This record gives sequence, C-alpha cells and structure tokens, in this order.
Amino acid sequence: MQSDLFDRDHELFRESVRGFVDKHVVPQLEKWDADRLIDRETWLTAGRQGLLGLSVPEEYGGPGELDYRFRFVIQQEIARVGASALQSGFSTNDDIVLNYLLRHADEEQRRRWLPGFVTGETIGAIAMSEPAAGSDLRAIQTTAVADGDSWVINGSKTFITSGILADLVIVFAKTDPSAGSRGFSLFVVEDGTPGFARGRKLDKLGLHAQDTAELFFEDVRVPKENLLGEIGSGFAYLMQSLPLERLGIGIAAQVSAEAVLGWTLDYVKERTAFGKRVGEFQGLGFTLAELQTAVEVSRAYIDRCVREHNAGTLTAVDAAKAKLWATELQGRVIDAGVQFHGGYGYMMEYPVAKAYIDARIQRIYGGTNEIMKEIIHRDLMKA
Amino acid sequence: MQSDLFDRDHELFRESVRGFVDKHVVPQLEKWDADRLIDRETWLTAGRQGLLGLSVPEEYGGPGELDYRFRFVIQQEIARVGASALQSGFSTNDDIVLNYLLRHADEEQRRRWLPGFVTGETIGAIAMSEPAAGSDLRAIQTTAVADGDSWVINGSKTFITSGILADLVIVFAKTDPSAGSRGFSLFVVEDGTPGFARGRKLDKLGLHAQDTAELFFEDVRVPKENLLGEIGSGFAYLMQSLPLERLGIGIAAQVSAEAVLGWTLDYVKERTAFGKRVGEFQGLGFTLAELQTAVEVSRAYIDRCVREHNAGTLTAVDAAKAKLWATELQGRVIDAGVQFHGGYGYMMEYPVAKAYIDARIQRIYGGTNEIMKEIIHRDLMKA
Amino acid sequence: MQSDLFDRDHELFRESVRGFVDKHVVPQLEKWDADRLIDRETWLTAGRQGLLGLSVPEEYGGPGELDYRFRFVIQQEIARVGASALQSGFSTNDDIVLNYLLRHADEEQRRRWLPGFVTGETIGAIAMSEPAAGSDLRAIQTTAVADGDSWVINGSKTFITSGILADLVIVFAKTDPSAGSRGFSLFVVEDGTPGFARGRKLDKLGLHAQDTAELFFEDVRVPKENLLGEIGSGFAYLMQSLPLERLGIGIAAQVSAEAVLGWTLDYVKERTAFGKRVGEFQGLGFTLAELQTAVEVSRAYIDRCVREHNAGTLTAVDAAKAKLWATELQGRVIDAGVQFHGGYGYMMEYPVAKAYIDARIQRIYGGTNEIMKEIIHRDLMKA
Amino acid sequence: MQSDLFDRDHELFRESVRGFVDKHVVPQLEKWDADRLIDRETWLTAGRQGLLGLSVPEEYGGPGELDYRFRFVIQQEIARVGASALQSGFSTNDDIVLNYLLRHADEEQRRRWLPGFVTGETIGAIAMSEPAAGSDLRAIQTTAVADGDSWVINGSKTFITSGILADLVIVFAKTDPSAGSRGFSLFVVEDGTPGFARGRKLDKLGLHAQDTAELFFEDVRVPKENLLGEIGSGFAYLMQSLPLERLGIGIAAQVSAEAVLGWTLDYVKERTAFGKRVGEFQGLGFTLAELQTAVEVSRAYIDRCVREHNAGTLTAVDAAKAKLWATELQGRVIDAGVQFHGGYGYMMEYPVAKAYIDARIQRIYGGTNEIMKEIIHRDLMKA
Repeated sequence: MQSDLFDRDHELFRESVRGFVDKHVVPQLEKWDADRLIDRETWLTAGRQGLLGLSVPEEYGGPGELDYRFRFVIQQEIARVGASALQSGFSTNDDIVLNYLLRHADEEQRRRWLPGFVTGETIGAIAMSEPAAGSDLRAIQTTAVADGDSWVINGSKTFITSGILADLVIVFAKTDPSAGSRGFSLFVVEDGTPGFARGRKLDKLGLHAQDTAELFFEDVRVPKENLLGEIGSGFAYLMQSLPLERLGIGIAAQVSAEAVLGWTLDYVKERTAFGKRVGEFQGLGFTLAELQTAVEVSRAYIDRCVREHNAGTLTAVDAAKAKLWATELQGRVIDAGVQFHGGYGYMMEYPVAKAYIDARIQRIYGGTNEIMKEIIHRDLMKA
Repeated sequence: MQSDLFDRDHELFRESVRGFVDKHVVPQLEKWDADRLIDRETWLTAGRQGLLGLSVPEEYGGPGELDYRFRFVIQQEIARVGASALQSGFSTNDDIVLNYLLRHADEEQRRRWLPGFVTGETIGAIAMSEPAAGSDLRAIQTTAVADGDSWVINGSKTFITSGILADLVIVFAKTDPSAGSRGFSLFVVEDGTPGFARGRKLDKLGLHAQDTAELFFEDVRVPKENLLGEIGSGFAYLMQSLPLERLGIGIAAQVSAEAVLGWTLDYVKERTAFGKRVGEFQGLGFTLAELQTAVEVSRAYIDRCVREHNAGTLTAVDAAKAKLWATELQGRVIDAGVQFHGGYGYMMEYPVAKAYIDARIQRIYGGTNEIMKEIIHRDLMKA
Repeated sequence: MQSDLFDRDHELFRESVRGFVDKHVVPQLEKWDADRLIDRETWLTAGRQGLLGLSVPEEYGGPGELDYRFRFVIQQEIARVGASALQSGFSTNDDIVLNYLLRHADEEQRRRWLPGFVTGETIGAIAMSEPAAGSDLRAIQTTAVADGDSWVINGSKTFITSGILADLVIVFAKTDPSAGSRGFSLFVVEDGTPGFARGRKLDKLGLHAQDTAELFFEDVRVPKENLLGEIGSGFAYLMQSLPLERLGIGIAAQVSAEAVLGWTLDYVKERTAFGKRVGEFQGLGFTLAELQTAVEVSRAYIDRCVREHNAGTLTAVDAAKAKLWATELQGRVIDAGVQFHGGYGYMMEYPVAKAYIDARIQRIYGGTNEIMKEIIHRDLMKA
Repeated sequence: MQSDLFDRDHELFRESVRGFVDKHVVPQLEKWDADRLIDRETWLTAGRQGLLGLSVPEEYGGPGELDYRFRFVIQQEIARVGASALQSGFSTNDDIVLNYLLRHADEEQRRRWLPGFVTGETIGAIAMSEPAAGSDLRAIQTTAVADGDSWVINGSKTFITSGILADLVIVFAKTDPSAGSRGFSLFVVEDGTPGFARGRKLDKLGLHAQDTAELFFEDVRVPKENLLGEIGSGFAYLMQSLPLERLGIGIAAQVSAEAVLGWTLDYVKERTAFGKRVGEFQGLGFTLAELQTAVEVSRAYIDRCVREHNAGTLTAVDAAKAKLWATELQGRVIDAGVQFHGGYGYMMEYPVAKAYIDARIQRIYGGTNEIMKEIIHRDLMKA
C-alpha cells in the first residue's frame, strides 16, 4: 500500500533533493568511504540548495519549516542511493543539534549559532557517550566546573558522530555530582577552543564516510554564554530531545529498508538461475512477500509518528517504538537483501553490501534497542 | 500510540455494542461452546439492536451504513470478550454473504434476501471448500446443471462456517467444465430445499461454538432465480469478494491481539513471583515490549486499510497483506499470552486459553497464509 | 541423520511396546479424551507387559533397568500415536515419583510402595504447585506440622498431573517457616487418608485425557513413616529430581516433534493442489527443510543428554537446556504441522490437531521455559 | 554440555596449533586485512608445523591423517582468534582442493601435486562460479576443447577463494555442450600457464584478508595430463566433493559461533551499566541463554556429522543440513554479539566486529543456504 503522507509541496521539494543527490552525492560515495570523511563542500552545496537547517526560523536565515515531512523527503532521497553517512551527518545537525539549540538557546546564542546550520558552514555534534558510559548516561565522568565567568570542562567522549568535522559540539557534562539527575548541564564547545582535541577517527565496521571520533576536553574553558539552557537541566533536556533523534533514526531505517528491498526486487527479477528469474522461486518469494508486507506495515506506523510529531503529540515511548521497530526491520530486510543477491551481495560494488555494514549501527546508537525495549516495558508496567 | 480511526459516532455506537455484548454474549460464552452452537435468539437480539446487516440499504430495511468503521467497532467489542465464534458468524453474514448479495443480486433477489440479514432472521453461509479442494478452488467437483427452469446441484462442501444454522447458502459450483475459470457460477440454496443436507458438525480443535459443517447436495433443484449474477462469473466474483473477507479476518485478528495483550498485561501486573510482579521481570518485559510495539504498528496498517476500503481503493493484494500480517501477529501474541499466564494459560477458565484454540484457524481460513504470501509474491514479480 | 542411540535390545523392547500401543492405546484415544481420564485397566495392562516401573530394583518386583533408553523407546512409541496424556501419566510415575522414592525412601517405604509402580496398581503424583505458587516454589503455603507420631498437613495444590487417579501423592510442604530453603519437606499421602480430597478435574485447553486436578489437604494426618527422606530437605530433593523430570519432558517433546513432522510429511506428499503435491511447493518445502534439520539437530543433543543421564553426569543446567530447546522446537513443528494440513489441521480427527492442543503445556510445566532460561542465564554469569 | 569429540591426541595437537596461532596469526591479523592478502610465509610456517595437507598420504610427504577431528582442532583454534580468512584459505586447500586430488588424481598427478599441499608451497583454488552462474553450476560458460594433446580453456570465473595467490586451480569447464550433466570436466591449471590471468581482488564487505578474485582463461592450453579424473565426470565429482566442503563450512561456523559467544559473555560480565554487569540484565540474559543452548545443541549435531564423516557415512543431505544450520546459527550469534557489545560492537578493534563482516559470506558460499534448503526439501519429498 502506498503511503499517503506527502502533498504536492513535498513532491516538488523531492525533485530538488533528488537533483542534489544525483549530482553531488552519488558520484562521491566511494570517495567518501575511502577518505573516511565527507568533504565540507558537500555541506555548503546542500546548504545552498536549501536542504539544511529546515527548522531554523526565518529571522536566523532559515526557512522555518516545521513540517517534518520535508526532512522525511531528504532522508528518502539519501536512502535511495545508500548514502548512510551523509544521512547520519545531516540528521545529527537537523534532528539533534538544532533541536537542542531551538529549544534551549537564548536569543544571543540563536543569533550566533543558527545561521551556520542553514548555510552548511556549521557542522554540529552532540557529545554524550563516554568510554565507560553508553546507554547509562548518568554514569558519565566529564565535568564542568564554574570558574569566574567561565566553565572549565574536563573529560573524554566517544562514538561522536561528525566528531572530526564538528564546528560546534554540545557537551553533556556533570556540574553537580551530588544532585543526581539534576546534576548535569549542556555546554557548547566551539572548534578551536584551547584544550579541545579530536581523537582518532574510529575504525568502524561500516559507515566509513562518517567521521565518528573520540573527543578530549582538557581544561577547556568556555564562557558562561556557552551554557545551553538552565544549569542542572542537561539530563532533562536529553530526555526531551531523544524522541526526535529516535524518530529520525526510525525514519532513516524505514526508508533504507524500502530502498534495499527495492534493489533486491530489481535484482531477483533480473538474475536467472535454473532457467527462471530467481525471484520466481517460491522459497525466496515467500520471504520477499513477508518483507514487503512488513515494510508497508511499518511505514503506516512511521507515517503516523510523523503526523504526531508534526502535531506535537509524539511521546517518547512511541518514538522508542518507532526506533526499535524500524531498525529491527531494516536489519532483517538488508540481511535478506544480501542473501538474495548471492555472492554479489557480499561485493561492495553492490549497494546492498554497503547497506549491510552501514546499517548495523542503527540498532545500537540513539539508545540501543534493548534500551528501547526497557523504555516500552516500563511504560507498560506503569500504565 | 492510540489509533485515530474513530469519530464520536463510532464511539456512541460502541456503547450500544458493548451493552449487547455484556448482556447477551458474556453470560452465554460457555454454553455456546458446550452446545457447539450459538442460539438463534442471539442473532435476533443482535438484529434488534442494529448490529447486523449494516450495509443493507434502507429500502431493504437496513441502515445502509457503508462506513466499515462501524463493523470494526463490533469486532472490537466482540474480541474484547473473546467471543470468536460469534465474530466468525457475524462476519460471515456481514462481510462475506452480504457482500456477494449486494454486489450481484438483482432487485428481486435483494427484496427476498436482504431484509433477513438485518433482523438476524437469516444466517448465511458461503460454500466454497470441498474435501479435495481448499485453497485451489478451480479443483472443486460440485456441479450445477441446467434443467428446464432449474439448476440441479450435486456435490459436497466442507469447512462451512455457520453450516448447521445457515438459512441461505451461496454455493460455488462448476457450470461448464470446459470453460476454465469462466466455468463456475454462484447459486443460492435455501434451507429446506430437497436434497440439501447438513453433515455432522465438524469436531474442531477450537472455535467450538461455531457450527462449522459439511454440506451435501444431492440433486438439489433450485429455480433459475437463485443464480447469483452472471453465469460463468462465479470465480471472478470470488476474486472480487475475497478482499473484504480477508480484511475482515485481519481486523478480527488485530482486535483479538489487542485484547489478548491487554489481558496478559493485566495478569502479569497482578501475579507475583519471587517477590515481584511477574511483568517486572525484564525477560518477559522485553517480549511484552516487542508485542506491544508490534500490535500498535500493525494497527496503523489495519487502520489505513479500513480507510482505503471505505474509499473503495483497497486492493486484493493489500487485503492479503492485512490478513497475513495480522493473523500471524495474533498467533504470536496469543502464544505469548498463554505462556505468560503460566499454568493458568492452559486452563479454559482464562480467556487466553480459549483464544489460543479459537484463533488457530485464522491463519488457515479465508485462504491460508501461504496463499496470501503467494498472492503478494506474484504481485511483486509483476510490478 | 539417523540417531545411533539404540542397540538391538532396545529395538526388541520397542516391538513389545508397539504391540501394547497398537492394541491398548490407539483404540481408546478418543474415549480417554471424552472421559477426561485414562482407565486403570490400561495401567494394569501396561504393568503386565513390563512397561512400568522400569527402574524399580528386582527385589521390589521390578526389572531394575537403569538404562534410560528403554524409557525413551516407550516415549517414542507413545508419541508415534499422539497419546500425550498417557505419556504424561507414565512419565509422572516413572520419571518423577519413582525417582523420588528410589532416591529417598527407606527400606520399609520401598517395600510398601515400589511394587505397585511395576504392576500399574499404583498411580503416583507429585504435588508441588499451588494457586499462588507455580515456578516460585519457596512461596508455597501448604504446611506440615508435627503432632506426636504424625504430621498434620494443611493446604491446597493445583495443576496436579494424575490428580484424580493418584493412589500415592508426594506432597511438598513447609515444615519450618523460619528455615528458608531448609524449611520444606516431602510427605507421602495415600488415597483414602482422611482430609485428603480431590478437587474438580481442571478444564484444560488440551491434554484432556490427563486427569489434572486440584488437591485439598485439611488436617490430613500421616504417620511419621510417610516422611520421605530427611526433614528440611524437601527443597534440595526437588532440585535433585528436576533434571530427570525435565529430560523426560525434553524427550517427550523431541519424539512428538519427530512424529508430527512425519505425519505432516505424509500429508503434504499425498495432498495435491494446483496440480501437484503440496509438499512440492518450495514455499512450504523450505520450512519443512528447516524443521527436518532442526529436529535432527535437536535429536543429536537429546541423545547426548540421555547418554549423560545414563552415565550420571547430566547436569541440572543441561537438563534445563534440553527441556527448553526441545519443547520450543515441538511447538514450532506442531504449529507448522497444523498449518500445512490446511483446514484439516484444525479438525480433531487429524492427530496433528490433538498434538496442537496437547503440547501447549510442555513449554509451561516442569518449570516454564522462562525459568529454564533464567537457570541457564545464571549459570552463564557464574561460569 | 561439553563436547566429547576429542581424545588426548587431539588435545596434544591443539597445543601445537595454538602455538602457531598465537605466534604467527594473531600478530598479523590487522596487517592481513590491510594488505587484503595473507602472506605466503604464513603458509610455509603452517606447513612446517604440520598443519597443512593432513590427509595427504605418507608416500607423498603427508601425515595421511584421515581423522577429520584434527582439522576440526585447527578450525577451532583459528576461530578462537577470529582469523576467518586464514580459515577460509586453509579449508579451501585441505577440505576442497585436496579432496578432489585425493579422489581423482592419478599416480603421476599425485606425485606432482600433493607434496606442495603439505609444505604450504602450493595454494590451491577451485574455480566453479561464474558471473552468470553461481548456485546453478550447469549454467557455466567456460569451455575446454580438446586440441591434439592439449585442452584449450576459455572463460572467466569469479568469487574464487585464494584467487590471487593460487598456484594450482581446479577449473570446472564444459567439455560437451550436448551431454547435459555429463558434459563437464575438471582441469588443473597451474600458475604461469599462458592465457591464465587473475582479475582484481574483489572488494568484499568483509573477509578482507582473503584474496577472493576473478580469474580469466583465454586460450589457456593445458596438457591432457592436467585433466582430473574422467572426462565428463566433472559434475559428478562436484556432487561428491561438496559434502566435505559443506561440513567444513559448518564446522567453521560452529566454532566461530562458540568463540563469539565466548567473547560476548566475557564482555557482558565485565561491562557495567546502571550499577550492575550488563550480562545480569535478564533481557539480555534470556537471549544469551537461548544462544548458549543453541550453540551446544548445534555442536552435538556437528560432532555427530564429524563422526559420520570419519566413518564414511555422512550423506550429502546431512552435510547440507550441517552447513545450513551452523551458518544460520553463526549469523544469529554474531549479530547478538555485536548488539551486546553496544557501540564497541561496531568498532573494528573488537573481534566481534570483524566476525560480523567476515561471517556474512558463510550463508552464501559453498552453495547458498537456499540451495541447502532445496537439497533437503527434495530429499524429504523423495523419501
């Protein structure tokens, strides 16, 4: 069943996105993977074409577009060509970092920081995870201590998406060890601040073009003006912002699953063996039928989530369901996609192979799917 | 996530349905299972309360209600108390038999047959399957031969829902062995027609209150006026009517899954072991979280199907997906529901036990789920 | 791959078992289900044919056969005809009750109780579960209080296999509320003891011929001679005896899965649709191939467990694995078996239908499969 | 449950293998992946330590060891450190190429070719798959045409394990297009033969150290002495040799699953979150328990297969089951292993990440698992 999510405006926007993708993304996919980095020029081009900072209000140079369906269109077009790392970078900017800034930045901060998210000049990152604290964010060790008009940050972060390129990093730090969940705050650290260093690009099993990195903070001094929102509210802000992050991952998973299933269907309709198209074998066909059904069923839910998000009614628990469901489905679809490509499924020249290694992180980041289950579980027991 | 399918009208109607269910269904569930039959009085009561023949036009005594969401409400309220056999009987009348009559009956036939579907005086059945032909309907052996102003029907049918009680049976018979798919026609055989006999009530593993039966036709003579629609179009009519039948099964599965998951959550929140509520154990909790997510995701798709059906755009393939998906989910939810009730899940006094045996037919009738997969598979290879 | 478990002796014994089954079991299966009871005559016949009390030493009238493979043969032959309730009754006697008696009964008790297990005159039961304590046995409320030369037992038990027929019941009771795990003891209560009453036969969703029941103990006075083993060791005895009980359930599941898969293969090789044998459809064939593989793989493990049991080296954790694995497999095989029988799979005249309802308890009793997982989990974290 | 497969001799041999692995494999794993090649020196070292050409008879310089358990030990020790590419190379030599030579080479050929398999001087390959013919080997296009005392080979092959390094390639070619299955023969093509060229190393999604490649044959002229076995028997030889190849893959999968589950258990016992070891969370624990059980169950079957192979009784169908079962299990275990490592599971420095990308080919090569299912399916329908 076709989705009925989009209107004509979205389809017009899609054409523009597709132009960008075909011209500026497809030709560079291999290079980015080889470089383990997406070049800044691509960000600037995307900015020029109006693909970044969609939710930035007009007074800060953005289109002020709060209808999330436009972001959905961008995700679809990127997924169509399997540019997972680009998706991840763009999503970090638009779904995560901007979300924090728009919710918690004061007027002065907005003026400083928002415009660059529209032009593509600013690449943002969010620094939460630490070597000894992934899902359990209360266990982080990075501290920020007030010192005169500054805060002094010490600690190290890991698994930071856009870690190498990031111009602006929102750092989650402990400001009061005795205050429990109210003892954390968010700070913006900008590129070039003394004591702020990038570690090595992490050697991941996939998503090679994504410059995931460790970040180090050694007596990093930021002015009080770089505190984001209220002191002690960092943990609460995280909780508020995770739903959109998770919906974003869920959508990325959904559109990836749709794309990969499409490639796979194309393949099995063309490839022949034992005298017929391999897709005609019922043994494969039953699995394809199940996956096609699963993808459409899942899409109905994701569409509903998008509408709820647009209406401001999407709950954190429902976003967790979207992330859990769609990323599990994506995993299953891609695994079958590789399998049904036979030996070619293992060859990097086929996009399904790249999808296989790129997508594995989806069930892990943004909160592992086990965390999602526990969030849902607790909600069920409460209800 | 809550469904947004219903309006205020549907909720008002729900109250009325709930009244009927609480007063006339719940107190009789055990008796019906013991009797292996639902009494006619229940049908008449349902008719009086406006729960039957919803789609019958006003000129034939019905409400002419084509918004399928009212049928959905009925299914939900019946599922809430686990009255599967009643659901099956009502659905056979309203989703299947009526669907044939409304599509293909001529004016005279409409006047004869439709009113009884509103009052509950007429219980209908559709006789397709035969001992040697289930999914493969082209293999049926029952014949209808023209003889003067009559048709003479010979053959036997099996697995006929409402077979014992049925007043009006639509019989799928071969009228031209040489005409392939165009060699089948539909006839209405009414109770009391000489040569029409009921076999034994079939001894099923569940759905005991449903009077599934064999039917025998020995030189059954019906007037030409009992031919439904065009001669030779029977197979085509089947193909046209299967989508609603399958959507109906899909909805029944969905609402059953929702109900059973609800009972199970209630149980695990109350039952304690090892010093806590059993639902708090994360080992169960993860599965409950997955199932809750699955149920909501599936609901989004089913709701979309209902809207498409209302709009007249639901395809046969999408109905097959709904039937496949929701009945598989129902099976998984009920199986887990039994398991999480522990020993009590195996006791008939718990509705989850009854659901376990009643629901097993859902993946089989209306076309086995393997047939659904093949329908979807073929569609994928065609596209 | 064929199992290599059996020697010539076992195959000879199999012939004898098969004779009993064909003559005394098959003709009565329907009657037993209808009666909700297996008649005592069957037990006596089985006793005469040497099928009961295999492990009873010769001095107490038994064959003293400790090679568990003979019990395996009995289970296979019973599973071959789907006589689940008989399997359950025999297993309760030979794998559970006798196991307690042989381990803990003193000489006088052995002389009193063992002979009847060989002749079939004594049907035994083990009374552990209570309405509020299933898996969590430390939560039982039944008490035994010393009073002169007697113990006085009060409480109620539920889900007791052979509860109606049992001549001898081993009751698990609390003897010292302050002693924790050392506060439980086992007592033998014999039929006819004042205050010992049977409740109703429980109305289960399957296994109808098994007279599962509630038992009530109201000031039941048993002589000190009816204490089994040491006072305060009841819980420890349970832990010692559970492995054989669980291996027994695992074997029953394995042989049932083998039998059901065999029936299903027979069916799909005979039934035709769309011009070929339904088993030839690859969509079904892939599932059949997976299940056949799964059944053979599982058998290799079960055989290994039997050899370990014979050698006295089977651990409680490995028995839990056998129970978990084989019963899950049995569930999957039977579910597919029903499905691949189409409408006939739902008809009680087909043994697969009976298997479907009978087998559902296997994943629950003897400790739910969730308990099995937790046992294995703890062992993994300890290692 | 522990395997009982090995005797003292195997354990002694294990020490020697482990010495080789720790000294010559572990330090080079990263380099091999970076080089996309295992250096020849490693092969020579392995040869010197007696790890290669186990089945080569003494008269040709080998140990003549036909007990496959020694090969199993090698596979285990290699899997223990995740050296998948080395496993794949060694297995191609010992389980595949040697198997052909030992079965079909004549005395002169044995003298020429066998000694190098013992010393590690000869790296072998088998060239079956072609761009348009993977599972469907009858569809290959490579031809060999007799011309005087030579055969002239033309065609191209792909997905050839050890394709770059191979000194000796067994080529599957069509020798009589009109002879159906009897129209294929095997030829040995040696390095340096004019017209024989290696294509590029294929860029795979994992197994980077394995030099999988395309091979090209352009008027490659080999003497009649390079025909292996009978003309026209090539297809039959493949069928004969596939069981050992598949058993080898099955064992590699099994020992990999065991190793990865071990690493994962180590990780979850050490890593803490929310105040406890993550392995203590029951949500993870249930999955770990299932996987541990699955691994032990599977091992029982694999051990049985090894014994059957040693006895010469392992059937092609049972080998297909081993390959299917163990590689599916390996996939599931590694996927969970990655997941339970959280973000670290995606980092190449953790062996589980490398296992994830390396193992994906296991369900594809040696005949896809879909082909395995079809082999088993056909066998079931025949029986």
